Amino acid sequence: MLKGNMVIGQSGGPTAVINQSLVGAILEARQHDAITGILGARHGIAGIMDENFIDLTTQSEEQLEEIALTPAAALGSVRLKPGKAECERVFEVFKKHNVRYFFYIGGNDSAETAYIIAEMAKDEGYDFCTIHLPKTIDNDLKVTDHCPGFASAAKFVALAFMGDDRDNAALGGVKINVVMGRDAGFLTAASALARQAEGQGPHLIYVPECVFDITQFQTDVKRAVAKYGRCVVAVSEGITNHEGKPVMTSGERDSHGNLQLSGTGALGDFLSAKVKEAYGDESVRVRADTFGYLQRSFPAVIATVDAQEARDVGIFGVQHAVSNSTAGSVAIRRISSQPYKSECFITPLSTVAREATSLKAEYMNDSGNDVTQAWLDYVAPLVGDLPKMGIL
Amino acid sequence: MLKGNMVIGQSGGPTAVINQSLVGAILEARQHDAITGILGARHGIAGIMDENFIDLTTQSEEQLEEIALTPAAALGSVRLKPGKAECERVFEVFKKHNVRYFFYIGGNDSAETAYIIAEMAKDEGYDFCTIHLPKTIDNDLKVTDHCPGFASAAKFVALAFMGDDRDNAALGGVKINVVMGRDAGFLTAASALARQAEGQGPHLIYVPECVFDITQFQTDVKRAVAKYGRCVVAVSEGITNHEGKPVMTSGERDSHGNLQLSGTGALGDFLSAKVKEAYGDESVRVRADTFGYLQRSFPAVIATVDAQEARDVGIFGVQHAVSNSTAGSVAIRRISSQPYKSECFITPLSTVAREATSLKAEYMNDSGNDVTQAWLDYVAPLVGDLPKMGIL
Repeated sequence: MLKGNMVIGQSGGPTAVINQSLVGAILEARQHDAITGILGARHGIAGIMDENFIDLTTQSEEQLEEIALTPAAALGSVRLKPGKAECERVFEVFKKHNVRYFFYIGGNDSAETAYIIAEMAKDEGYDFCTIHLPKTIDNDLKVTDHCPGFASAAKFVALAFMGDDRDNAALGGVKINVVMGRDAGFLTAASALARQAEGQGPHLIYVPECVFDITQFQTDVKRAVAKYGRCVVAVSEGITNHEGKPVMTSGERDSHGNLQLSGTGALGDFLSAKVKEAYGDESVRVRADTFGYLQRSFPAVIATVDAQEARDVGIFGVQHAVSNSTAGSVAIRRISSQPYKSECFITPLSTVAREATSLKAEYMNDSGNDVTQAWLDYVAPLVGDLPKMGIL
Repeated sequence: MLKGNMVIGQSGGPTAVINQSLVGAILEARQHDAITGILGARHGIAGIMDENFIDLTTQSEEQLEEIALTPAAALGSVRLKPGKAECERVFEVFKKHNVRYFFYIGGNDSAETAYIIAEMAKDEGYDFCTIHLPKTIDNDLKVTDHCPGFASAAKFVALAFMGDDRDNAALGGVKINVVMGRDAGFLTAASALARQAEGQGPHLIYVPECVFDITQFQTDVKRAVAKYGRCVVAVSEGITNHEGKPVMTSGERDSHGNLQLSGTGALGDFLSAKVKEAYGDESVRVRADTFGYLQRSFPAVIATVDAQEARDVGIFGVQHAVSNSTAGSVAIRRISSQPYKSECFITPLSTVAREATSLKAEYMNDSGNDVTQAWLDYVAPLVGDLPKMGIL
């Protein structure tokens, strides 16, 4: 059995439940004699290189449970892909502090970092165990059925569309909401959970997995308005054109005639202008919101299953490390959807590192502007109960 | 005692609790013999002119209670300032349907509509009672201590900043959040409720009541970053420059002459560019979110006091109308802040119509970039308990 200190770090974009995995791992680690001390790395791999650690061995459970309920990475996060020099420094630090366990909470980039470090340990003959704990609101990790962090963000998106659809029903016009998801449309597709009755929005859903054609978009919107008297659109920030390029770097100008800025409101403003153009009428009521960072860090919106699974992933990762001492990434297997049941398992780091997955073709309709029932069956149990919207 | 039908309508931007006022008024009206029937006007004054009514006399209480918990105007809303011709048509309809009570839920523009109609009834010698029921997330009505709808939106803003500040603490850089508020900074100022410990954001707060100087803004941000290593900024969509002109607008106006500020990311993108310019470095991490319509229609975030007061306002308005038959606007008087207690009273329509109020000077600091303790004492009891953010 490996015996020594453990380092835990958080990496990439925060989620509403990433701290559940952190706290699950810490509290489980305290149960095992193999783990002699728990070091939290400030800002992930960057904190390791700087020996910027916080001792997590003795915090009160009460404080840790408060942190578990708090969104965003409590240890601080980082976006850094370590090269050879960085990895050597990490190892120097690990050896200095007798670190035998390394837990890295993050997405596919973080899994790649964990993989690089695990491989290096092998090369150096350093007895060491690296575990990747999954998190990402994008839900784009391979192997796992879904990723901790996704369902809470999906719940936020669903709630936002429920309320916004009522808002649009009250005042009319076209409303475009830009949802996070650079390369994968999972979160945008979750907007469909907002529909509780025929005619409710979102009426159109566009994801990066389907080619986004501006002319088709304009036609779709006009058709929806003709049918429902209004239109709510869900669109991923990462939609791409026929050439596979993001819609927003196509050299288009915004409604003010300015070249688009790289800021987050640009895509929504651009699409608004396109709708007005389609009607040939500047006075058509078109509004766009970009949900932005609220989706991944809103404190009051947590999916119950998500919080529990994020916790379980941390616990399972530590249990596996202590009993098996082999590197890997924790993944979730869905046992049943009704009632919802899942379990954790370990997959090799190489199967999760770097490459990401995307929305299955069967989850989108043939027109590429809406989800299918199969998608709703997949996502609904993860998000859980939503309030019922009362309608006159 | 006036005896006849009542018409109720909703107007202006929706809120999360506007339907509480609707349901409060309907259920109270059913208790009074003076009110023989209850007609809901679809899309406010527009629905009245079109005789587009829904009979609200017999809906089940269960259905109504569902609606009370649903954000955004269940009857549909409208932004329409009636002229002489429209008012004449409204009266024609009222007479035809023997309408003796008119309840209009809305902000200062809606109060103006109610006022115009009440005056016209006097001129015509038509025995009739008009009551304005206040709602606005902007909190900018005169006379009343605060407006139903504001506290729930303020709670959303506070929660959003709490989570977003943790997000910014995890990844660093400058984060700018654009908050609703055309001419009044109440909602933006509510972001200060997110702070629970020294160093937490928002670190800077800009409202329309204080002149926004770009150079000063750049200096403020750099100073905050120097002090805290990062910076979260709250800024009203309606901030104005030295000439009193909006810093950013699409140029679109509604029928009340209000400029369109929401539903576009332009201001956030503009301010981001200004921060990068201040550093002379495009690679500085600057992000901007525009909270947009989520602030006024998010289903899961309701302030308890707000829901109760919105309900009370509807009930009180009907009770006053039936017992006094005199026109007026319902307002809220704060009796105490600790423990929080309030009561409803009636103020003449003329005192609320058209003109709006704004943040008191004592609520902002001398630099015009933060709120004061007096503001926190005012707003905290309305918003109520917020979750505690756990910090390592």
